[in-house]
Amino acid sequence: MRPTPAPAMPPAGFAGRFPTPYVAVIFTSQRRAPDPAYDATAEAMVTLAAQQPGYLGAESARGADGLGITVSYWADEAAVAAWRAELRHQAARDTGRLRWYRHYELRVARVERAYGWDEQDGSADPMQGGAA
Amino acid sequence: MRPTPAPAMPPAGFAGRFPTPYVAVIFTSQRRAPDPAYDATAEAMVTLAAQQPGYLGAESARGADGLGITVSYWADEAAVAAWRAELRHQAARDTGRLRWYRHYELRVARVERAYGWDEQDGSADPMQGGAA
Repeated sequence: MRPTPAPAMPPAGFAGRFPTPYVAVIFTSQRRAPDPAYDATAEAMVTLAAQQPGYLGAESARGADGLGITVSYWADEAAVAAWRAELRHQAARDTGRLRWYRHYELRVARVERAYGWDEQDGSADPMQGGAA
Repeated sequence: MRPTPAPAMPPAGFAGRFPTPYVAVIFTSQRRAPDPAYDATAEAMVTLAAQQPGYLGAESARGADGLGITVSYWADEAAVAAWRAELRHQAARDTGRLRWYRHYELRVARVERAYGWDEQDGSADPMQGGAA
């Protein structure tokens, strides 16, 4: 399926639009107390992920209560498996369990359709028009 | 596939664990300026969604920059379609485009596997053990 036509450059914080199907890895986590080492590692992992074959993009938000959601997007399952096997990523995950997280849930999902809307698009529902 | 055994009650902010497959609706949005009417509507929609057939749960995070991710979980596509057709939900989405959002992306995905970890589980990787 063709996605909604994509803007030339996604707005800050958005991953962009990709032809479906692709894979989303949904990581929901509750942090312990803030730790600057976490921020440095998280930034390093974003950079490293972006260098992996099959990486499409990622979106991330964390509230003041420490609950965060990061969704990373991948071309296929092989790309997800390779990222999971990456040694620096494994080490970061180990440190996460030891030091940074209270709880997390990870879900691997196949994106089957996608829509986007921008304030410049007007007020119509982008899901109208038969694509749903 | 059986999910990781679930805790009796998910921690605050987490949706819980459900047998796969199920459907995830990933909604990433950039808010305009804060608006108390948004908060009231968002809270009403959470309550209304939880009353829909096939609703499983939801997780949500928004950072200080106004970028947020909400993932809602549904038993199947029919449940997603029914929620999409709910009239108060349609009205809230219309208001969102007129007043609250600068940009959003919505992705509908089929969750194929899931893992969870809690600090009481020890430091081992919950994805080890053959389930991946």
